[in-house]
Amino acid sequence: MYRRHRLTAVFMGIDTHQESVVYMREDCHVCRAEGFNASSRIAVEYAGQQLIASLNVVTPAALPEQHIGFSRIALQKLKIEPGAQVTVGHAPIIASLSAVRKKIYGHALSDVEMNSIIADIATHRYRDIEVASFLSVCAGQRLSLDEIIALTRAMVACGERLTWPTHKRIFDKHCIGGLPGNRTTPLVVAIVSAAGLVIPKTSSRAITSPAGTADTMETLTNVSLSLDALRDVVTRTGACLAWGGAVNLSPADDLLIRIERALDLDGEGQLIASVLSKKIAAGSTHVLIDIPVGDTAKVRTLSDAERLVDLFAQVSNALGLQLRCVISDGSRPIGRGIGPVEEARDVLAVLQCQPEAPQDLRARAIALAAELLDLANGEGLAAAEKQAADIVDSGRAWAQFQRILTAQGGIKPLPHARQQDLQLATASGVVRAIDNRRLARLAKLAGAPADVAAGLRLHANVGDAITVGAPLFTLLTDSPGEREYALDYYRENLNMFDIGALV
Amino acid sequence: MYRRHRLTAVFMGIDTHQESVVYMREDCHVCRAEGFNASSRIAVEYAGQQLIASLNVVTPAALPEQHIGFSRIALQKLKIEPGAQVTVGHAPIIASLSAVRKKIYGHALSDVEMNSIIADIATHRYRDIEVASFLSVCAGQRLSLDEIIALTRAMVACGERLTWPTHKRIFDKHCIGGLPGNRTTPLVVAIVSAAGLVIPKTSSRAITSPAGTADTMETLTNVSLSLDALRDVVTRTGACLAWGGAVNLSPADDLLIRIERALDLDGEGQLIASVLSKKIAAGSTHVLIDIPVGDTAKVRTLSDAERLVDLFAQVSNALGLQLRCVISDGSRPIGRGIGPVEEARDVLAVLQCQPEAPQDLRARAIALAAELLDLANGEGLAAAEKQAADIVDSGRAWAQFQRILTAQGGIKPLPHARQQDLQLATASGVVRAIDNRRLARLAKLAGAPADVAAGLRLHANVGDAITVGAPLFTLLTDSPGEREYALDYYRENLNMFDIGALV
Repeated sequence: MYRRHRLTAVFMGIDTHQESVVYMREDCHVCRAEGFNASSRIAVEYAGQQLIASLNVVTPAALPEQHIGFSRIALQKLKIEPGAQVTVGHAPIIASLSAVRKKIYGHALSDVEMNSIIADIATHRYRDIEVASFLSVCAGQRLSLDEIIALTRAMVACGERLTWPTHKRIFDKHCIGGLPGNRTTPLVVAIVSAAGLVIPKTSSRAITSPAGTADTMETLTNVSLSLDALRDVVTRTGACLAWGGAVNLSPADDLLIRIERALDLDGEGQLIASVLSKKIAAGSTHVLIDIPVGDTAKVRTLSDAERLVDLFAQVSNALGLQLRCVISDGSRPIGRGIGPVEEARDVLAVLQCQPEAPQDLRARAIALAAELLDLANGEGLAAAEKQAADIVDSGRAWAQFQRILTAQGGIKPLPHARQQDLQLATASGVVRAIDNRRLARLAKLAGAPADVAAGLRLHANVGDAITVGAPLFTLLTDSPGEREYALDYYRENLNMFDIGALV
Repeated sequence: MYRRHRLTAVFMGIDTHQESVVYMREDCHVCRAEGFNASSRIAVEYAGQQLIASLNVVTPAALPEQHIGFSRIALQKLKIEPGAQVTVGHAPIIASLSAVRKKIYGHALSDVEMNSIIADIATHRYRDIEVASFLSVCAGQRLSLDEIIALTRAMVACGERLTWPTHKRIFDKHCIGGLPGNRTTPLVVAIVSAAGLVIPKTSSRAITSPAGTADTMETLTNVSLSLDALRDVVTRTGACLAWGGAVNLSPADDLLIRIERALDLDGEGQLIASVLSKKIAAGSTHVLIDIPVGDTAKVRTLSDAERLVDLFAQVSNALGLQLRCVISDGSRPIGRGIGPVEEARDVLAVLQCQPEAPQDLRARAIALAAELLDLANGEGLAAAEKQAADIVDSGRAWAQFQRILTAQGGIKPLPHARQQDLQLATASGVVRAIDNRRLARLAKLAGAPADVAAGLRLHANVGDAITVGAPLFTLLTDSPGEREYALDYYRENLNMFDIGALV
């Protein structure tokens, strides 16, 4: 930017997600002088901060003279208020893009190159097409083991990192991809921290599912903890159940995941780096990975799962992490509730040992907690499983869960959805299968996760015998529009529940 | 779209280049019901036409209730006026994206797959990140010969195609990338069509240079010819000098080139398919390709040029084209003028045999015309070169050029730039080198090609002896802002002219 053009910032009221966009008039002297057009990359500076943004050119009616419009993310990234004076010029050349081109042309990336790419992505210096280009040439099995290790390290390096000087062993768990209702994390954290393990758990919000662990926990307590608050909670209770986004542990990851999902890319290297970088950034030393395998789960075959287990082992070994993978049944939804509040109800029912608590959720949580306890103590799975079950049955898990939530700011009562529509079975027989993906879509159409009380409550699951007219599930909605919309979808997709004679 | 939501269209006044964007309110019931968010893909339907667009979510202040905003390209693609009622739903799944994923995972694409990808790109069904993904995994040398042939065929198949039932042989020429001022095409077309060859030339506008052939020709005549008009001009004169964009010969190409340039990718397969698909679509049978090689040209080394020649030969052979490649000197600007009008002046000076006509431009044009004449008649280059020079010297090229322009709608007088700033040499010696890229940038900062009269006129070129204070070039501008801007740039980049003692 060898010459400085000053313009006044204004918010355009437009949400362009993670890609910063600025808007300038087609007759703006700056556009003409700089030769900007509708696909230019622009550098905007304010108070010593620089933002790289894409330009959209607008008609004079859309913007006053001498003004420059900002999308929401552009305003946020530059940390300015509308009315501020900014300077505008051509975006600088992003040096790490030459490393991306190197990878495009088939050459392996060094640690330094991987680091420079991820650092630039994390600071929003890439446009979406550049992130897409990078991900595409890293997808499939195009990253070597060394590159996956470099990518993991780079993703750790560009974010915050927690340290736990007073604890030698820090535990964590992660589940690969999505069975509706499979909300084991709050249970596992309560059980193993009641047993004395330190587990500062940070979780994400839903990306494509009806609820993430952070969404579910937010219906019960405050999950937006600062780094200091998070440390304080863990010091007092040995655990936390926080939203990872608030502590900025792996800022590149969110940006990569968004484009990866949009392109429907399954990069195994990217997946491993994404998971492990967050664990390392959280200061974890011992990590359990749950890999559900099923036709409508994220990992669909046993051989895919085994390949993943092998790579996880090699990368975590290189990075000094103790890691254990569990391959689990991913063929059916877990628990009864789907959606933030309904999943929280299931979690509470298990912790409080209510007679109607979903036993499949309880069993999975105890099994995973046992794996972590065995990883910690090495006394064998049978003993660990008995210990985990005792912690639940004795009420110690529930007491510990309350302690964690109290430390995070208190326990909130769960709201109820305004509309409840009971749906009845349209056939008699056995529930032979439930389509996890369409079930998740139904819960999202009902309003989850934005409407926290919206979602579903299942009254039957795979394997249950059912007669026509018996309760199948309850649809929970907060607005009449969404209620109608979800019901329409369900009526056209009745076969998401496969009910009939067992063959 | 199993359920139809109706909204009223409104123009947002925003130019999003080639990517269609629609804008919906964050509180819109359609967004909530469909689960749309700031990165959703939307299908908008109107009068049986469907548009696939990206969604930007906006605040209520930015859009009235029950309305949906359109970017300029989105309005154009759906061919609607503001106020129209449209229906909105989720975008359908684009089947050809699974072929892109196949290529991402390292498998070769079949003809059918390549065809489906290009057809969907040409009809704007891909978003930019998807085009970026496709180009990235095709870049470098990742396309096999068969894939390049398939890509070329696919690019022809998705556009219009000219046929010439009354002519057996149709000639064409193309120059790979950019020396400032190298405007040989109008000269070559005039010369060879005066000699009886049929050459229906379509050209592009500038993408990154200060002028494309279409920009230069537009200062002299009408270049936006319909298919019928183009055929009529060629029937009457044996040639035309038209803008290719008006006849839609290879619609996928523009969309691919835009992303390729933004990513700075040089895909040789992409380049070959881009060039040859346009020739085939224009009905050409005999094609001359000029490949300038130089440090600041598009092709930088002789071995790159030779590899390209080899691929061009194989692909054109498979597609039944007669092709000849010429590797030429790409070390310096050609002619005196840079910018649409100034390049037109040079063309006229050569055709009119003016004493001050740039001899380097004349020599290149005659050499290229001779290659085409030799390709046609096989009487040897020496004879062909003499024939070409005779056609220029006798005024027959000028007469033929006037005939073509008259058929296209008449000859326009060239305008003059409002401001002319003579720049003087700041040292004595020989002009040892001129940086083509910075020279082109200077002409663009002056306003070219949008301001057609803006640009530069060189008074010295590489190899000329010059003394301090002698005329070096004239900067031509139309607005005071651009004049200042370009002069600033020049003052900071005086060394784009390397003047000194020869070593």
